[in-house]
Amino acid sequence: MANDLQSSKGQTAIAKTAVAFDRPLNLACGFELTTHELVFETYGKLNSSHTNAILICHALSGDHHAAGVDSEGKSGWWEHYIGPGKPIDTNRFFVVCPNNIGSCFGSTGPNSINPATGKHWGADFPTLEVGDWVESQVFLMEHLEIDCWAAVVGGSLGGMQAMHWSVVHPEKLQHAVVIAASLKLSAQNIAFNEIARRAIQSDVNFKDGQYLEHQTSPKDGLALARMIGHLTYLSDHALGRKFGRLVRSGDLDAAQKELVEFEISSYLNYQGDKFAKGFDANSYILITKMLDYFDLVKNYKNDALATFSNAKCQFLVVSFSSDWRFSPECSEEITDALIGADKNVTYLRIESDQGHDAFLLPDARYENGVSLYLNRVADQLEAEQP
Amino acid sequence: MANDLQSSKGQTAIAKTAVAFDRPLNLACGFELTTHELVFETYGKLNSSHTNAILICHALSGDHHAAGVDSEGKSGWWEHYIGPGKPIDTNRFFVVCPNNIGSCFGSTGPNSINPATGKHWGADFPTLEVGDWVESQVFLMEHLEIDCWAAVVGGSLGGMQAMHWSVVHPEKLQHAVVIAASLKLSAQNIAFNEIARRAIQSDVNFKDGQYLEHQTSPKDGLALARMIGHLTYLSDHALGRKFGRLVRSGDLDAAQKELVEFEISSYLNYQGDKFAKGFDANSYILITKMLDYFDLVKNYKNDALATFSNAKCQFLVVSFSSDWRFSPECSEEITDALIGADKNVTYLRIESDQGHDAFLLPDARYENGVSLYLNRVADQLEAEQP
Repeated sequence: MANDLQSSKGQTAIAKTAVAFDRPLNLACGFELTTHELVFETYGKLNSSHTNAILICHALSGDHHAAGVDSEGKSGWWEHYIGPGKPIDTNRFFVVCPNNIGSCFGSTGPNSINPATGKHWGADFPTLEVGDWVESQVFLMEHLEIDCWAAVVGGSLGGMQAMHWSVVHPEKLQHAVVIAASLKLSAQNIAFNEIARRAIQSDVNFKDGQYLEHQTSPKDGLALARMIGHLTYLSDHALGRKFGRLVRSGDLDAAQKELVEFEISSYLNYQGDKFAKGFDANSYILITKMLDYFDLVKNYKNDALATFSNAKCQFLVVSFSSDWRFSPECSEEITDALIGADKNVTYLRIESDQGHDAFLLPDARYENGVSLYLNRVADQLEAEQP
Repeated sequence: MANDLQSSKGQTAIAKTAVAFDRPLNLACGFELTTHELVFETYGKLNSSHTNAILICHALSGDHHAAGVDSEGKSGWWEHYIGPGKPIDTNRFFVVCPNNIGSCFGSTGPNSINPATGKHWGADFPTLEVGDWVESQVFLMEHLEIDCWAAVVGGSLGGMQAMHWSVVHPEKLQHAVVIAASLKLSAQNIAFNEIARRAIQSDVNFKDGQYLEHQTSPKDGLALARMIGHLTYLSDHALGRKFGRLVRSGDLDAAQKELVEFEISSYLNYQGDKFAKGFDANSYILITKMLDYFDLVKNYKNDALATFSNAKCQFLVVSFSSDWRFSPECSEEITDALIGADKNVTYLRIESDQGHDAFLLPDARYENGVSLYLNRVADQLEAEQP
């Protein structure tokens, strides 16, 4: 029994694939992306009726590597939540996580070659909206011969994709799991994104976004952008608990304070620099703008109830008490609209001091809530299997 | 009667002065500033016994021009609160506001000439602590022949100066008015300051802080630093109310979104650029570090009660409900310590959605609270006048 448990909670097997679509993707901006490629990972097995697939939608800086340990020894960004016996149980579900277009981990984006010019797209990559990611995911769904997702799941920008799915493709999903998201960004959120973009664009190595052609990289600006993001994804309390006023170098008691570096400063600088090595500045600009533009209810006369009236799926909405970028109030606005639109919705407000980052981190009640919800989904699917 | 009222609330007369001190100021860092100059404004009249003087302590980006309209037509930064018939009533008090050393509005700072080299100090200006500002203000006090301030008043970093005065020079003030301040900065606050400094230092025109010698200016970096500060001094709610998702240019409904600029982005960019024209980057770095280093209780074995045990003045402590950089909890920590140390303390928690900036803005209860407190002080002073 102990062995069974161990086995059921063992390593997540990863299948990494790339698929190139030769038919055009018509973007919301009017541009026709004649071809595009998606890199994606899958975990678990698709059942015979193809009904047990879950789509994982990544957020601003995410990628296709959501679970397991890859060939470079790197754990997935949602490793705590996806795997055998985990809340998104790969013993029961076939889990699909693509890197979305416009990002920079292998799928078509600013780092790709623009077929029209033979050069990197760079800043000329077309403007994207959340709906474009969803339409590209529809291509992937068809490629995988899935008619309907058991669930579409995402946090932050991922939750926006899940909501978009529910409204625009109501027949194509049974459940939407919308975590730490909002119907649209607040002025404060837009402002943080704007400062991040200006930090990148002010970097002399940005070269109007054509830095690849100039063989430069706006690493400093991107590091700054990430530092702002990273800091605001955490709560004041968690930072106080983890770092407080601890000093990494120098001595606050000494008269000479030139050498004083606080742990929090060292940590943030390190995180910023590390991120800037692995991410693309144009993708950062592009995707933060996707966040700013997202406004699910605008197309429905700003009526949130009317927006969701089309939806057919059931919803799990999750928020975290200390998340001040996508606060519980944002999730409660979603939940209230769903209740008003007579949809089946479960709302979990998780007490956490981890800020927005909580959606990625271990938390007993959060894990348990997602587990209970998705196990119920799996139970029903398995009962319906021929 | 109406005329009297008008007159009593009329224009604030400004006396602007500069004073050069030829005796050395020994800084906390061990450096001896052999001479230094302070620019200051005064409003109202010093009484015959020199007991009605109030010292105004400015914050990070403040200057000596706290009240009235100067020769360039510019209103003082605390115009709502200082003047005839206003909460800090210049009909009753002699109000003194210096620009502090290390700043950039005429008092000795990084923009001044280092007498040892004949060049601008630039980044070589010595590290400052809050206590250094207070000691320089003691010089000014002696110059003005004031033995004891009726009150030392300040918001944010200004409140830190007021607290420092109360503990280090207990005989030299009757009242300390500590607004939107804290005993020390949290990790989150330090982190925002660190990002601001890195933005400045990353600017290619920063030139290791010797940009004046290179005849350049790290305006972009300083603008970014200010945008971060400005944004975090406001509350999410106030931003939502003022800007929401309003668009300044472009059209969110159009497919092409390249031209979309949100009002909040336009506003913040404008504020950043405007600030960068008037402020000095080295001063910004220097003064944000003063904030980071400030820790009133550290020298008293981290015992806040012991810290204030020396104080002899009475305290008015003020906080604002939506201030998340210097939250009510910070002011309540100060208040609790003062209660524990058996000091006379009045605490006002003002309901406001204006964030940290509330300390500068009109607010009926805030104005009334400061008025009532300081009028009581003036009543007593006037009763004691010979």
